Amino acid sequence: MRISALAAAAGLPVATVKFYLREGLLHAGAATSATQATYDDTHLRRLRLIRALTGPVGLSVQQARTILDLVDEPGDDLYATLGRAVSALPPQTAPAPADAPDPYPHARAALEALGQVYDPRFAAVAQLETALAAAEDAGMPISRDRLIAYGRQLHALAAYDLGHLPDEPRAAVEYTVLGTALYEPVILALRRLAHQDVAARRMS
Amino acid sequence: MRISALAAAAGLPVATVKFYLREGLLHAGAATSATQATYDDTHLRRLRLIRALTGPVGLSVQQARTILDLVDEPGDDLYATLGRAVSALPPQTAPAPADAPDPYPHARAALEALGQVYDPRFAAVAQLETALAAAEDAGMPISRDRLIAYGRQLHALAAYDLGHLPDEPRAAVEYTVLGTALYEPVILALRRLAHQDVAARRMS
Repeated sequence: MRISALAAAAGLPVATVKFYLREGLLHAGAATSATQATYDDTHLRRLRLIRALTGPVGLSVQQARTILDLVDEPGDDLYATLGRAVSALPPQTAPAPADAPDPYPHARAALEALGQVYDPRFAAVAQLETALAAAEDAGMPISRDRLIAYGRQLHALAAYDLGHLPDEPRAAVEYTVLGTALYEPVILALRRLAHQDVAARRMS
Repeated sequence: MRISALAAAAGLPVATVKFYLREGLLHAGAATSATQATYDDTHLRRLRLIRALTGPVGLSVQQARTILDLVDEPGDDLYATLGRAVSALPPQTAPAPADAPDPYPHARAALEALGQVYDPRFAAVAQLETALAAAEDAGMPISRDRLIAYGRQLHALAAYDLGHLPDEPRAAVEYTVLGTALYEPVILALRRLAHQDVAARRMS
Protein backbone atom coordinates (compact mmCIF):
# COMPACT_ATOMS: atom_id res chain seq x y z
CA MET A 1 0.00 0.00 0.00
CA ARG A 2 1.01 3.63 -0.45
CA ILE A 3 2.04 5.78 2.54
CA SER A 4 -1.35 7.53 2.56
CA ALA A 5 -3.19 4.19 2.84
CA LEU A 6 -0.75 3.03 5.53
CA ALA A 7 -1.29 6.19 7.57
CA ALA A 8 -5.07 5.89 7.23
CA ALA A 9 -5.00 2.21 8.29
CA ALA A 10 -2.92 3.13 11.35
CA GLY A 11 -5.11 6.12 12.19
CA LEU A 12 -2.14 8.50 12.00
CA PRO A 13 -1.40 11.63 9.95
CA VAL A 14 0.95 11.04 6.99
CA ALA A 15 3.35 13.58 8.52
CA THR A 16 3.63 11.44 11.66
CA VAL A 17 4.42 8.32 9.62
CA LYS A 18 7.10 10.26 7.72
CA PHE A 19 8.54 11.44 11.03
CA TYR A 20 8.81 7.85 12.29
CA LEU A 21 10.50 6.87 8.98
CA ARG A 22 13.05 9.70 9.28
CA GLU A 23 13.73 8.81 12.92
CA GLY A 24 14.29 5.16 11.98
CA LEU A 25 11.48 3.93 14.27
CA LEU A 26 9.67 2.57 11.20
CA HIS A 27 11.56 0.55 8.57
CA ALA A 28 11.62 1.89 5.00
CA GLY A 29 9.12 0.65 2.43
CA ALA A 30 10.07 -1.04 -0.85
CA ALA A 31 10.92 1.66 -3.40
CA THR A 32 8.68 1.60 -6.47
CA SER A 33 10.14 4.74 -8.03
CA ALA A 34 12.55 7.50 -7.11
CA THR A 35 9.92 9.20 -4.96
CA GLN A 36 7.49 6.45 -3.98
CA ALA A 37 7.54 3.33 -1.85
CA THR A 38 5.08 0.61 -0.94
CA TYR A 39 4.30 -0.63 2.57
CA ASP A 40 2.89 -3.88 3.93
CA ASP A 41 1.43 -5.40 7.10
CA THR A 42 4.80 -5.34 8.91
CA HIS A 43 4.69 -1.54 8.69
CA LEU A 44 1.13 -1.38 9.92
CA ARG A 45 1.92 -3.64 12.86
CA ARG A 46 4.94 -1.52 13.74
CA LEU A 47 2.88 1.67 13.64
CA ARG A 48 0.28 0.10 15.94
CA LEU A 49 3.09 -0.72 18.38
CA ILE A 50 4.55 2.80 18.23
CA ARG A 51 1.09 4.33 18.62
CA ALA A 52 0.35 2.18 21.68
CA LEU A 53 3.72 2.98 23.31
CA THR A 54 3.42 6.74 22.76
CA GLY A 55 -0.35 6.81 23.43
CA PRO A 56 -1.96 4.69 26.18
CA VAL A 57 1.38 3.41 27.55
CA GLY A 58 2.50 7.03 27.89
CA LEU A 59 6.11 6.94 26.67
CA SER A 60 8.00 9.71 24.92
CA VAL A 61 9.37 8.92 21.44
CA GLN A 62 12.83 8.51 22.99
CA GLN A 63 11.52 6.08 25.63
CA ALA A 64 9.62 4.16 22.94
CA ARG A 65 12.85 3.87 20.96
CA THR A 66 14.49 1.99 23.87
CA ILE A 67 11.74 -0.61 23.67
CA LEU A 68 11.68 -0.75 19.87
CA ASP A 69 15.44 -1.40 19.88
CA LEU A 70 14.88 -4.38 22.19
CA VAL A 71 12.10 -5.66 19.87
CA ASP A 72 14.46 -5.35 16.88
CA GLU A 73 17.43 -6.98 18.58
CA PRO A 74 16.27 -9.27 21.39
CA GLY A 75 19.73 -10.90 21.56
CA ASP A 76 20.50 -14.33 22.97
CA ASP A 77 19.36 -13.82 26.57
CA LEU A 78 15.61 -13.36 26.11
CA TYR A 79 14.97 -13.39 29.87
CA ALA A 80 17.29 -10.40 30.40
CA THR A 81 15.83 -8.59 27.39
CA LEU A 82 12.25 -8.99 28.65
CA GLY A 83 13.35 -7.64 32.04
CA ARG A 84 14.99 -4.62 30.44
CA ALA A 85 11.92 -3.95 28.29
CA VAL A 86 9.54 -4.05 31.26
CA SER A 87 11.90 -1.85 33.29
CA ALA A 88 11.61 0.78 30.53
CA LEU A 89 7.83 1.05 31.12
CA PRO A 90 6.16 3.50 33.51
CA PRO A 91 6.18 4.08 36.41
CA GLN A 92 9.76 5.32 36.23
CA THR A 93 11.52 4.66 39.53
CA ALA A 94 14.82 6.16 40.60
CA PRO A 95 17.53 3.54 41.12
CA ALA A 96 18.66 3.03 44.71
CA PRO A 97 22.03 4.52 45.70
CA ALA A 98 24.71 1.91 45.02
CA ASP A 99 25.96 2.06 48.63
CA ALA A 100 22.54 1.69 50.32
CA PRO A 101 22.78 -1.43 52.51
CA ASP A 102 19.07 -2.36 52.28
CA PRO A 103 17.31 0.05 49.89
CA TYR A 104 13.96 -1.81 49.66
CA PRO A 105 13.18 -3.34 53.07
CA HIS A 106 9.39 -3.67 52.58
CA ALA A 107 9.75 -5.25 49.13
CA ARG A 108 12.53 -7.57 50.30
CA ALA A 109 10.44 -8.82 53.23
CA ALA A 110 7.39 -9.26 50.97
CA LEU A 111 9.25 -11.27 48.34
CA GLU A 112 10.85 -13.43 51.04
CA ALA A 113 7.38 -14.13 52.47
CA LEU A 114 6.22 -15.10 48.95
CA GLY A 115 9.24 -17.31 48.33
CA GLN A 116 10.20 -15.26 45.27
CA VAL A 117 13.61 -14.03 44.17
CA TYR A 118 14.58 -10.57 45.50
CA ASP A 119 16.74 -8.70 42.98
CA PRO A 120 17.05 -4.98 43.82
CA ARG A 121 18.11 -4.20 40.24
CA PHE A 122 14.65 -5.04 38.94
CA ALA A 123 12.51 -1.89 38.54
CA ALA A 124 9.35 -3.50 39.93
CA VAL A 125 11.12 -3.98 43.29
CA ALA A 126 11.43 -0.21 43.76
CA GLN A 127 7.83 0.12 42.58
CA LEU A 128 6.67 -2.44 45.17
CA GLU A 129 8.67 -0.67 47.90
CA THR A 130 6.99 2.67 47.14
CA ALA A 131 3.53 1.08 47.06
CA LEU A 132 3.98 -0.86 50.33
CA ALA A 133 5.43 2.18 52.11
CA ALA A 134 2.52 4.39 50.96
CA ALA A 135 -0.03 1.88 52.29
CA GLU A 136 1.78 1.64 55.63
CA ASP A 137 2.09 5.40 55.83
CA ALA A 138 -1.68 5.76 55.43
CA GLY A 139 -2.26 3.39 58.36
CA MET A 140 -3.28 0.53 56.01
CA PRO A 141 -0.19 -1.72 55.87
CA ILE A 142 -0.49 -4.90 53.77
CA SER A 143 -0.70 -7.75 56.27
CA ARG A 144 1.28 -10.92 55.69
CA ASP A 145 -1.99 -12.80 55.19
CA ARG A 146 -3.16 -10.34 52.50
CA LEU A 147 0.23 -10.41 50.84
CA ILE A 148 0.11 -14.21 50.56
CA ALA A 149 -3.48 -14.09 49.25
CA TYR A 150 -2.69 -11.44 46.63
CA GLY A 151 0.61 -13.10 45.74
CA ARG A 152 -1.09 -16.44 45.05
CA GLN A 153 -3.71 -14.94 42.73
CA LEU A 154 -1.19 -12.77 40.88
CA HIS A 155 1.22 -15.66 40.46
CA ALA A 156 -1.55 -17.65 38.76
CA LEU A 157 -2.32 -14.66 36.56
CA ALA A 158 1.36 -14.28 35.66
CA ALA A 159 1.64 -17.99 34.86
CA TYR A 160 -1.23 -17.55 32.39
CA ASP A 161 0.61 -14.61 30.79
CA LEU A 162 3.90 -16.49 30.46
CA GLY A 163 2.05 -19.57 29.19
CA HIS A 164 1.02 -17.50 26.17
CA LEU A 165 4.45 -16.01 25.44
CA PRO A 166 5.13 -16.29 21.69
CA ASP A 167 8.11 -18.46 20.69
CA GLU A 168 9.53 -15.95 18.25
CA PRO A 169 11.80 -13.56 20.25
CA ARG A 170 10.68 -10.28 18.62
CA ALA A 171 7.02 -11.19 19.11
CA ALA A 172 7.83 -12.23 22.69
CA VAL A 173 9.22 -8.76 23.49
CA GLU A 174 6.19 -7.04 21.93
CA TYR A 175 3.78 -9.32 23.80
CA THR A 176 5.57 -8.75 27.09
CA VAL A 177 5.67 -4.98 26.77
CA LEU A 178 2.09 -4.51 25.59
CA GLY A 179 0.69 -7.30 27.77
CA THR A 180 2.28 -5.67 30.81
CA ALA A 181 1.34 -2.06 30.12
CA LEU A 182 -2.01 -2.37 28.32
CA TYR A 183 -3.44 -5.17 30.44
CA GLU A 184 -2.70 -3.38 33.75
CA PRO A 185 -5.66 -0.97 33.39
CA VAL A 186 -7.85 -3.96 32.43
CA ILE A 187 -6.80 -5.75 35.61
CA LEU A 188 -7.50 -2.73 37.83
CA ALA A 189 -10.93 -2.16 36.27
CA LEU A 190 -11.79 -5.87 36.61
CA ARG A 191 -10.79 -5.78 40.28
CA ARG A 192 -13.08 -2.80 40.95
CA LEU A 193 -15.93 -4.50 39.10
CA ALA A 194 -15.32 -7.73 41.00
CA HIS A 195 -15.58 -5.71 44.23
CA GLN A 196 -18.92 -4.40 43.02
CA ASP A 197 -20.08 -7.90 42.08
CA VAL A 198 -19.06 -9.45 45.42
CA ALA A 199 -20.52 -6.52 47.37
CA ALA A 200 -23.81 -6.67 45.43
CA ARG A 201 -24.23 -10.35 46.31
CA ARG A 202 -23.37 -9.81 49.98
CA MET A 203 -24.83 -6.42 50.79
CA SER A 204 -27.78 -5.53 48.61
CA MET B 1 -1.65 16.61 72.19
CA ARG B 2 -1.08 20.16 70.99
CA ILE B 3 -1.38 21.10 67.32
CA SER B 4 2.40 21.15 66.90
CA ALA B 5 2.68 17.59 68.19
CA LEU B 6 -0.24 16.51 66.00
CA ALA B 7 1.34 18.04 62.90
CA ALA B 8 4.68 16.40 63.68
CA ALA B 9 3.03 13.00 64.22
CA ALA B 10 1.23 13.32 60.88
CA GLY B 11 4.38 14.52 59.09
CA LEU B 12 2.66 17.75 58.00
CA PRO B 13 3.45 21.45 58.50
CA VAL B 14 1.34 23.13 61.23
CA ALA B 15 0.05 25.57 58.56
CA THR B 16 -1.36 22.65 56.57
CA VAL B 17 -3.15 21.25 59.63
CA LYS B 18 -4.62 24.72 60.31
CA PHE B 19 -5.76 24.91 56.68
CA TYR B 20 -7.59 21.56 57.00
CA LEU B 21 -9.22 22.81 60.23
CA ARG B 22 -10.39 26.03 58.55
CA GLU B 23 -11.72 24.08 55.54
CA GLY B 24 -13.61 21.73 57.84
CA LEU B 25 -11.79 18.64 56.54
CA LEU B 26 -10.41 18.06 60.06
CA HIS B 27 -12.72 18.25 63.08
CA ALA B 28 -11.90 20.82 65.78
CA GLY B 29 -9.91 19.84 68.85
CA ALA B 30 -11.16 20.17 72.44
CA ALA B 31 -10.62 23.76 73.56
CA THR B 32 -8.33 24.07 76.58
CA SER B 33 -8.22 27.88 76.58
CA ALA B 34 -9.38 30.75 74.38
CA THR B 35 -6.50 30.18 71.96
CA GLN B 36 -5.51 26.55 72.46
CA ALA B 37 -6.99 23.14 71.80
CA THR B 38 -5.94 19.56 72.31
CA TYR B 39 -6.06 16.78 69.72
CA ASP B 40 -6.21 13.00 69.91
CA ASP B 41 -5.79 9.88 67.81
CA THR B 42 -8.99 10.55 65.84
CA HIS B 43 -7.33 13.71 64.51
CA LEU B 44 -4.14 11.88 63.64
CA ARG B 45 -6.04 9.16 61.82
CA ARG B 46 -8.00 11.75 59.86
CA LEU B 47 -4.82 13.58 58.86
CA ARG B 48 -3.31 10.29 57.65
CA LEU B 49 -6.40 9.75 55.50
CA ILE B 50 -6.28 13.28 54.04
CA ARG B 51 -2.57 12.97 53.41
CA ALA B 52 -3.04 9.65 51.58
CA LEU B 53 -5.91 11.01 49.46
CA THR B 54 -4.08 14.19 48.44
CA GLY B 55 -0.67 12.44 48.16
CA PRO B 56 -0.32 8.93 46.69
CA VAL B 57 -3.99 8.68 45.67
CA GLY B 58 -3.57 11.93 43.75
CA LEU B 59 -6.79 13.82 44.56
CA SER B 60 -7.23 17.58 44.84
CA VAL B 61 -8.48 18.93 48.19
CA GLN B 62 -11.95 19.35 46.62
CA GLN B 63 -11.98 15.75 45.35
CA ALA B 64 -10.77 14.52 48.74
CA ARG B 65 -13.66 16.41 50.36
CA THR B 66 -16.17 14.34 48.35
CA ILE B 67 -14.71 11.18 49.84
CA LEU B 68 -14.36 12.61 53.36
CA ASP B 69 -18.04 13.59 53.26
CA LEU B 70 -18.95 9.99 52.45
CA VAL B 71 -16.75 8.77 55.33
CA ASP B 72 -18.48 11.21 57.69
CA GLU B 73 -22.01 10.39 56.54
CA PRO B 74 -22.14 6.91 55.05
CA GLY B 75 -25.94 6.91 55.25
CA ASP B 76 -28.17 3.84 55.31
CA ASP B 77 -27.25 2.31 51.94
CA LEU B 78 -23.63 1.38 52.51
CA TYR B 79 -23.40 -0.49 49.18
CA ALA B 80 -24.34 2.69 47.25
CA THR B 81 -22.00 4.81 49.38
CA LEU B 82 -19.04 2.52 48.74
CA GLY B 83 -19.79 2.66 44.99
CA ARG B 84 -19.90 6.46 45.06
CA ALA B 85 -16.65 6.65 47.02
CA VAL B 86 -14.78 4.38 44.58
CA SER B 87 -16.23 6.31 41.62
CA ALA B 88 -14.64 9.46 43.07
CA LEU B 89 -11.16 7.91 42.77
CA PRO B 90 -8.85 8.26 39.75
CA PRO B 91 -8.89 7.54 36.88
CA GLN B 92 -11.61 10.09 36.20
CA THR B 93 -13.79 8.92 33.32
CA ALA B 94 -16.25 11.07 31.42
CA PRO B 95 -19.84 9.82 31.79
CA ALA B 96 -21.40 8.39 28.62
CA PRO B 97 -23.95 10.57 26.80
CA ALA B 98 -27.38 9.82 28.24
CA ASP B 99 -28.76 8.98 24.78
CA ALA B 100 -25.96 6.58 23.73
CA PRO B 101 -27.68 3.25 23.03
CA ASP B 102 -24.67 1.06 23.93
CA PRO B 103 -21.88 3.27 25.29
CA TYR B 104 -19.58 0.51 26.57
CA PRO B 105 -19.80 -2.47 24.17
CA HIS B 106 -16.45 -4.07 25.10
CA ALA B 107 -17.11 -3.79 28.84
CA ARG B 108 -20.68 -5.05 28.48
CA ALA B 109 -19.55 -8.13 26.52
CA ALA B 110 -16.75 -8.79 29.03
CA LEU B 111 -19.02 -8.60 32.06
CA GLU B 112 -21.61 -10.83 30.36
CA ALA B 113 -18.86 -13.39 29.66
CA LEU B 114 -17.88 -13.22 33.35
CA GLY B 115 -21.47 -13.54 34.54
CA GLN B 116 -21.23 -10.21 36.39
CA VAL B 117 -23.72 -7.37 36.60
CA TYR B 118 -23.31 -4.71 33.88
CA ASP B 119 -24.28 -1.27 35.20
CA PRO B 120 -23.14 1.56 32.88
CA ARG B 121 -23.45 4.10 35.71
CA PHE B 122 -20.54 2.55 37.56
CA ALA B 123 -17.27 4.41 36.83
CA ALA B 124 -15.18 1.23 36.51
CA VAL B 125 -17.30 0.18 33.51
CA ALA B 126 -16.09 3.20 31.51
CA GLN B 127 -12.58 2.49 32.78
CA LEU B 128 -12.80 -1.14 31.56
CA GLU B 129 -14.14 -0.01 28.18
CA THR B 130 -11.19 2.35 27.66
CA ALA B 131 -8.69 -0.32 28.70
CA LEU B 132 -10.18 -3.07 26.49
CA ALA B 133 -10.42 -0.71 23.49
CA ALA B 134 -6.78 0.39 23.90
CA ALA B 135 -5.61 -3.26 23.96
CA GLU B 136 -7.65 -4.09 20.85
CA ASP B 137 -6.42 -0.98 19.09
CA ALA B 138 -2.81 -2.04 19.67
CA GLY B 139 -3.52 -5.42 18.04
CA MET B 140 -3.54 -7.20 21.43
CA PRO B 141 -7.25 -7.73 22.20
CA ILE B 142 -8.07 -9.57 25.41
CA SER B 143 -9.26 -13.03 24.34
CA ARG B 144 -12.30 -14.58 25.98
CA ASP B 145 -10.04 -17.23 27.49
CA ARG B 146 -7.75 -14.60 29.04
CA LEU B 147 -10.70 -12.60 30.29
CA ILE B 148 -12.11 -15.64 32.08
CA ALA B 149 -8.69 -16.46 33.55
CA TYR B 150 -8.09 -12.90 34.78
CA GLY B 151 -11.67 -12.57 35.96
CA ARG B 152 -11.43 -15.70 38.12
CA GLN B 153 -8.21 -14.56 39.84
CA LEU B 154 -9.45 -11.03 40.42
CA HIS B 155 -12.77 -12.24 41.76
CA ALA B 156 -10.91 -14.30 44.36
CA LEU B 157 -8.80 -11.27 45.21
CA ALA B 158 -11.91 -9.08 45.54
CA ALA B 159 -13.60 -11.68 47.75
CA TYR B 160 -10.59 -11.46 50.08
CA ASP B 161 -10.91 -7.67 50.15
CA LEU B 162 -14.64 -7.75 50.93
CA GLY B 163 -14.09 -10.48 53.51
CA HIS B 164 -12.04 -7.97 55.48
CA LEU B 165 -14.49 -5.07 55.23
CA PRO B 166 -14.88 -3.48 58.69
CA ASP B 167 -18.38 -3.65 60.20
CA GLU B 168 -18.44 0.00 61.27
CA PRO B 169 -19.70 2.05 58.27
CA ARG B 170 -17.20 4.93 58.49
CA ALA B 171 -14.31 2.51 58.77
CA ALA B 172 -15.78 0.53 55.85
CA VAL B 173 -15.71 3.60 53.58
CA GLU B 174 -12.11 4.40 54.58
CA TYR B 175 -11.02 0.81 54.05
CA THR B 176 -12.72 0.63 50.64
CA VAL B 177 -11.25 3.90 49.39
CA LEU B 178 -7.69 3.31 50.60
CA GLY B 179 -7.75 -0.42 49.88
CA THR B 180 -8.81 0.30 46.32
CA ALA B 181 -6.43 3.15 45.56
CA LEU B 182 -3.35 2.28 47.63
CA TYR B 183 -3.38 -1.46 46.97
CA GLU B 184 -3.62 -1.06 43.18
CA PRO B 185 0.08 -0.13 42.78
CA VAL B 186 0.95 -3.06 45.08
CA ILE B 187 -1.03 -5.41 42.82
CA LEU B 188 0.64 -4.14 39.64
CA ALA B 189 4.12 -4.42 41.14
CA LEU B 190 3.37 -7.94 42.43
CA ARG B 191 2.16 -8.97 38.95
CA ARG B 192 5.39 -7.74 37.36
CA LEU B 193 7.46 -9.52 39.99
CA ALA B 194 5.42 -12.70 39.53
CA HIS B 195 6.20 -12.49 35.79
CA GLN B 196 9.86 -12.28 36.65
CA ASP B 197 9.58 -15.21 39.05
CA VAL B 198 7.72 -17.44 36.56
CA ALA B 199 10.07 -16.43 33.74
CA ALA B 200 13.17 -17.09 35.85
CA ARG B 201 11.97 -20.61 36.61
CA ARG B 202 11.10 -21.35 32.97
CA MET B 203 13.75 -19.50 31.00
CA SER B 204 16.99 -19.10 32.89
